[in-house]
Amino acid sequence: MPRYQANVKDMQFVLHEMLQISTADTPGYQDLEPDFTKAILDAVARVATETLTPLNISGDRQGCCLDGGAVHTPDGFKPAFKALRAGGWTSLCCAREDGGEGLPFLMYTAVGEILSAANMALNMYAGLTHGAYSAIARHGSPDQRRMWLPKLASCEWTGTMNLTEPQCGTDLGLIGTRAVPQADGSYRLSGQKIFISAGDHDLAENIVHLVLARTPDAPSGTKGLSLFIVPKFLPDAQGRPGTANGVYTRGIEEKMGIHASPTCALDYDQAQGWLMGPLHGGMAAMFTMMNEARLGVGLQGYALAGAAYENALEYARTRRQGRAPSGPFDPEADADPLIVHPDVRRMLMEQKSFVEGARALAFWGASLIDRAEAGDAPSDALASLLTPVIKGVLTDRGFDSTVLAQQVFGGYGYIEDTGMAQFVRDARITMIYEGANGVQALDLVGRKLGAQKGEGLRLLLAEIEAECARARDLAELVPLADALTQGTAEMMQATAYLAQTGKAHPDQALAGSYDFMHLMGHVCLGLMWLRMAFAVQHSTWTDQGFLQAKLHTAQYYLTRHMPACAMHRVRIETGGDNVMALRADAF
Amino acid sequence: MPRYQANVKDMQFVLHEMLQISTADTPGYQDLEPDFTKAILDAVARVATETLTPLNISGDRQGCCLDGGAVHTPDGFKPAFKALRAGGWTSLCCAREDGGEGLPFLMYTAVGEILSAANMALNMYAGLTHGAYSAIARHGSPDQRRMWLPKLASCEWTGTMNLTEPQCGTDLGLIGTRAVPQADGSYRLSGQKIFISAGDHDLAENIVHLVLARTPDAPSGTKGLSLFIVPKFLPDAQGRPGTANGVYTRGIEEKMGIHASPTCALDYDQAQGWLMGPLHGGMAAMFTMMNEARLGVGLQGYALAGAAYENALEYARTRRQGRAPSGPFDPEADADPLIVHPDVRRMLMEQKSFVEGARALAFWGASLIDRAEAGDAPSDALASLLTPVIKGVLTDRGFDSTVLAQQVFGGYGYIEDTGMAQFVRDARITMIYEGANGVQALDLVGRKLGAQKGEGLRLLLAEIEAECARARDLAELVPLADALTQGTAEMMQATAYLAQTGKAHPDQALAGSYDFMHLMGHVCLGLMWLRMAFAVQHSTWTDQGFLQAKLHTAQYYLTRHMPACAMHRVRIETGGDNVMALRADAF
Repeated sequence: MPRYQANVKDMQFVLHEMLQISTADTPGYQDLEPDFTKAILDAVARVATETLTPLNISGDRQGCCLDGGAVHTPDGFKPAFKALRAGGWTSLCCAREDGGEGLPFLMYTAVGEILSAANMALNMYAGLTHGAYSAIARHGSPDQRRMWLPKLASCEWTGTMNLTEPQCGTDLGLIGTRAVPQADGSYRLSGQKIFISAGDHDLAENIVHLVLARTPDAPSGTKGLSLFIVPKFLPDAQGRPGTANGVYTRGIEEKMGIHASPTCALDYDQAQGWLMGPLHGGMAAMFTMMNEARLGVGLQGYALAGAAYENALEYARTRRQGRAPSGPFDPEADADPLIVHPDVRRMLMEQKSFVEGARALAFWGASLIDRAEAGDAPSDALASLLTPVIKGVLTDRGFDSTVLAQQVFGGYGYIEDTGMAQFVRDARITMIYEGANGVQALDLVGRKLGAQKGEGLRLLLAEIEAECARARDLAELVPLADALTQGTAEMMQATAYLAQTGKAHPDQALAGSYDFMHLMGHVCLGLMWLRMAFAVQHSTWTDQGFLQAKLHTAQYYLTRHMPACAMHRVRIETGGDNVMALRADAF
Repeated sequence: MPRYQANVKDMQFVLHEMLQISTADTPGYQDLEPDFTKAILDAVARVATETLTPLNISGDRQGCCLDGGAVHTPDGFKPAFKALRAGGWTSLCCAREDGGEGLPFLMYTAVGEILSAANMALNMYAGLTHGAYSAIARHGSPDQRRMWLPKLASCEWTGTMNLTEPQCGTDLGLIGTRAVPQADGSYRLSGQKIFISAGDHDLAENIVHLVLARTPDAPSGTKGLSLFIVPKFLPDAQGRPGTANGVYTRGIEEKMGIHASPTCALDYDQAQGWLMGPLHGGMAAMFTMMNEARLGVGLQGYALAGAAYENALEYARTRRQGRAPSGPFDPEADADPLIVHPDVRRMLMEQKSFVEGARALAFWGASLIDRAEAGDAPSDALASLLTPVIKGVLTDRGFDSTVLAQQVFGGYGYIEDTGMAQFVRDARITMIYEGANGVQALDLVGRKLGAQKGEGLRLLLAEIEAECARARDLAELVPLADALTQGTAEMMQATAYLAQTGKAHPDQALAGSYDFMHLMGHVCLGLMWLRMAFAVQHSTWTDQGFLQAKLHTAQYYLTRHMPACAMHRVRIETGGDNVMALRADAF
């Protein structure tokens, strides 16, 4: 069975040595002293290791089942979810007035990594609920906020997002679910939604569906969509779950992974719901949930990679096969541990440098969101640019990283007992849901790059230049700064190509969108590694082993991965002709 | 349910337009006229589509089960396997004296692609049997050949390879299974073998295990291993399966994929067996099976990618979402087909250019083996160099290609019903078994590259130079030849680095072995694409659509993928310091 022990020390390094949060002027950060964040992270790490991890593999095996129209979660999920709620982990960054802890989004992110790494399927129930909380908090009326937010903060009730229908995933303009206004101000919804995560289950006494639907005579396309709150049970006068609403679970999907998270097909048949936000303004409200969800999915990507890496590392240290090429490492034993082999090392360094770099990027992104929430426009622009990169790159490479971890196990990695296959199977969905990664690349190149006349990119460049400038004061960091500068130059050359061709020939630019997303991912991760290397030089930590390993890993990442930037740039500059040359029937 | 229709036209192009087999002077090729090979491929394609494909997803769901010590295969596997045998597909390249068809290995390879693509798990029973056939044909005594070969050729009995034990996978020197000589010249084997594909099943009346074991007082390590033939049932005087031998199926593994292929743990308890080949010469005999098996696994890698691509293409043509960025493609409909989107195109072109390039490489490799078998030493040296590349690169990238195919399906790709997840799950094992891909890279850089003073590499370079020279006579091919020349220069620069550092500092070279394997893979696939582009220019085929698409795809591959060569070279030249810097306890 796989193990998981959260890497709290590395989180503390990112929070305090790299981001230096307790001295940042971000509202709410002044309380985040090292002792305080460590106490929080240690506490959730304990819950993760003791309660969530043991249920990860059993939950995968048992899965959810639909019986008599109701979804049942795997054994042990009910008490575990209760423990999450009781610990206040689900309401960590909800407002105090809603019963939450009122901590910054950054802390929610750090805690979320730990919970996702330990049991992604179980944490999804809470994660989706938090998305619904955020949407209602921002777009709901005062009455709606009073009614739903406390229940969602505590996860006494859970939430869902209802977008997809059989004929539309990415293309939400094709949504056909109808919402007909009633005399009492409510609506009646009818239609079919699919791929609804946690659409039904037995972990909470009520479920609050946020549903995109079309009112009669609404415009076609996404401009005609409105967002509705549709509970599974209609609250009674005391606010308790009362009459069952017209929402029926038609089936749950058999999936490649996240078996313990039920993916439901829901039939709405005259279900009562209430408009949230403006009529025909559903997309804007839904995007609040989606942006948060996208960051959360990027986090899942590297969180699973981190858990898988921990197991691969343990295996590489203990499994003995063959001899070190430079001579026996442990002559007394029959064979050396796997970790002496250069290619096993490569696999471990790939994982380590990805996971730690991704953690820094996700935490930085979360800190930008905290500043943006407090009204800082530049942070908002930068976070907006980074969102598709965090989602797309951290999930693509997170998946690759779980595959590498499985590879370290050799044949044993393919056996479900070791749990390594589950990391791969679970991680696979992160590249697809909340906007497939090709859609993230389109969002980045088609929208985010040029938004506000390129403000986000300008800010990112300023960050890189400032980081390189201060790094160059330290001789040891000069080669690292040079590597990042070179990668950044490739990114800017690619950006110039996209800007030149994109307007007149969108296909020419968009054929390179995926390469561009990954090129920017390398640059962002390179920036994180340079920052961490700089933090090492100025750290007051006494754990020299940790600091030295961090510096080595920075050297590994910047040396081995920045060369990918040139390759992506060359590919982007080949344009779209080769990609678009074949007629659809000529493939 | 996924579909599969073998791409016989493309196979014919590789066989006749690129390899021009019917005019080659390879023994046995003179009969391989286009009509003849088409008849064979069409026939097996029919069996694949009608009989094997429908059982692929049901076999995955039902899996194998162990009941009362015996393994039962999924419903429908028995008649399907019978159909394979009856069609002569299992004995295609077995000798006529053993009841086979005596066709070249090349035809077995082409047929194997089709059978693996349709149902990899089912074809494994036959594939392993053919490996056992080849080993006995080469290393068995005349009596052993007479006794076992006809049964294995027809798959009346099937075969297995027994190498792995719980404590040893890659490191076979740790094998502990004992073989004690008996007065009658046979041996009694005792020990535990694991991960034995098709170690027990109900598709054949007997199973012939080839088992690596150690005789008493044998040297330690691989030098003390001998190979034994150990049948499940001891043949009686008439050569029919008689008394049960001491081989017991202790369990079957629950795996990520290939559920219809039982992965058995076998206990040998005083099982009777016969030495094959020289005492303590087991490794050499086993390598006959392993090299063939490695090519067969490379073939599985791209075969699954091909089947997955066919489904992704069909989905991209029919599923409608969004609009082409350059304006509606089909204004009458609600939305355009996915295939209009540049990034979907990119995914399809990636798959198409990989699968067709890989097919050309696998077929070329098989044709080299046919020449090598006929005594041509240069072909043998070249095939030996290419074996780890074909195994390692075609499975790594084959897996990536199935992931891309799944991605085209969006959320539907994650649902097991579409079968796209199964392609990914099944393909994953090809990167692990028959030598994990890191071991292939080690074999390439540590052994093959320098073997016979670099004869294999010299021959590969000569092939590339000759191909580029003749391509440069055609203006349209000049840029393609330039791209291949550039990639080859990167490969040679990387080779020089490995040669300079490898002897004194093996870690420095081996840290780059994986990058080198993929660098050589890009060059080999680039060579195949230049060859196919050349073949297009000289083809007498009248299907201009096919030829034009082939040329476009060559342009795509050489333009988009050769830039990866420089990246791999730069990485290789960073050496091993960054990879090896951390102490094992500092990770």
